[in-house]
Amino acid sequence: MRPGRPKEFDTQQVVEWAMQGFWLNGYEAFGLTGLLECMGISRQSLYDTFGSKRGLFIRTLEHYRQTQLSQAIALLERDGSQIENVKALVRFFETLALGGSCRGCLVANTLVELGSSDDEIAALLREILEALKCAIESALREAQARGELAETKSPAEISRALTNAVIGLAVTGKLQMDPADIRQIYSGTLSMLD
Amino acid sequence: MRPGRPKEFDTQQVVEWAMQGFWLNGYEAFGLTGLLECMGISRQSLYDTFGSKRGLFIRTLEHYRQTQLSQAIALLERDGSQIENVKALVRFFETLALGGSCRGCLVANTLVELGSSDDEIAALLREILEALKCAIESALREAQARGELAETKSPAEISRALTNAVIGLAVTGKLQMDPADIRQIYSGTLSMLD
Repeated sequence: MRPGRPKEFDTQQVVEWAMQGFWLNGYEAFGLTGLLECMGISRQSLYDTFGSKRGLFIRTLEHYRQTQLSQAIALLERDGSQIENVKALVRFFETLALGGSCRGCLVANTLVELGSSDDEIAALLREILEALKCAIESALREAQARGELAETKSPAEISRALTNAVIGLAVTGKLQMDPADIRQIYSGTLSMLD
Repeated sequence: MRPGRPKEFDTQQVVEWAMQGFWLNGYEAFGLTGLLECMGISRQSLYDTFGSKRGLFIRTLEHYRQTQLSQAIALLERDGSQIENVKALVRFFETLALGGSCRGCLVANTLVELGSSDDEIAALLREILEALKCAIESALREAQARGELAETKSPAEISRALTNAVIGLAVTGKLQMDPADIRQIYSGTLSMLD
């Protein structure tokens, strides 16, 4: 290593840790000092790589999408009943809410904190929600083609309503609700498919 | 007025203004300094009345419930079709989301910011959501008794799912979504009643 060269660090590791920090604390409340100490890197190195706290945050949102949300969307790509796949996706978010995780969902949290004040982040959040909606809609169209979903149902409307419902679950899950109540949200929401 | 007695102020006016401030900015981000200046009162007078910033915030949540949410619940108390009343309630939240108000809903915002860190506030939020759910459930039971809602439907599950959906609308409404998309959320959500 040449003298004076900034210490190398594992970018992916920083993004992963930062994601956990922003997820648990929120964007404004999460200070970078602890993160820098844990990683043993300087603020300048971090800024050289990510530009700013906001730049790092945008990277963590993309990382969240590629890790957490991809897991949920992968449930829709399994063979077999497409309706069961859609139910499994809603169950994924029900399970998060049942876990009583105080973190909620990074996308939903960011929606509330920054959705109306930062246009670039709002656009990214819309894009993430649109991807989720499109994956659900595609599964519902396939279900309809196979006769698993009534012809009278609108995959476009239901996929949007289900995307909205999982955001609701991510938010209300923070309240440590009675598990029986969360199961009722799940069952009532899925009655859109009946 | 006796000398030395703190300046009188209109408690209700302070609560109303504070509600607007917390609603727009969030609990942590809303500083009291501007509020005190506008009202021409001292921090000490405010603390003598409300105990703390948190005490004032709890009063504003109760005020929000009595003003904003009561308007929504009143829609369920009209004569005529109970199903139409329930649809009007969901439309109330759809309209908020269509309005592109960046404030969202004070209850949903607080859920995200404090729902998992402040037990007393979490309990109050649960109570507010429970009241909304019970009002919807009661309307759905009446609809079922009148034959407006199929016997196979569960008012308990659907009322919880609708409460969850209006929280979702309050949150996604902050993203300034395409009005056509918000209308699809509305229609898809109401397909629970079909």
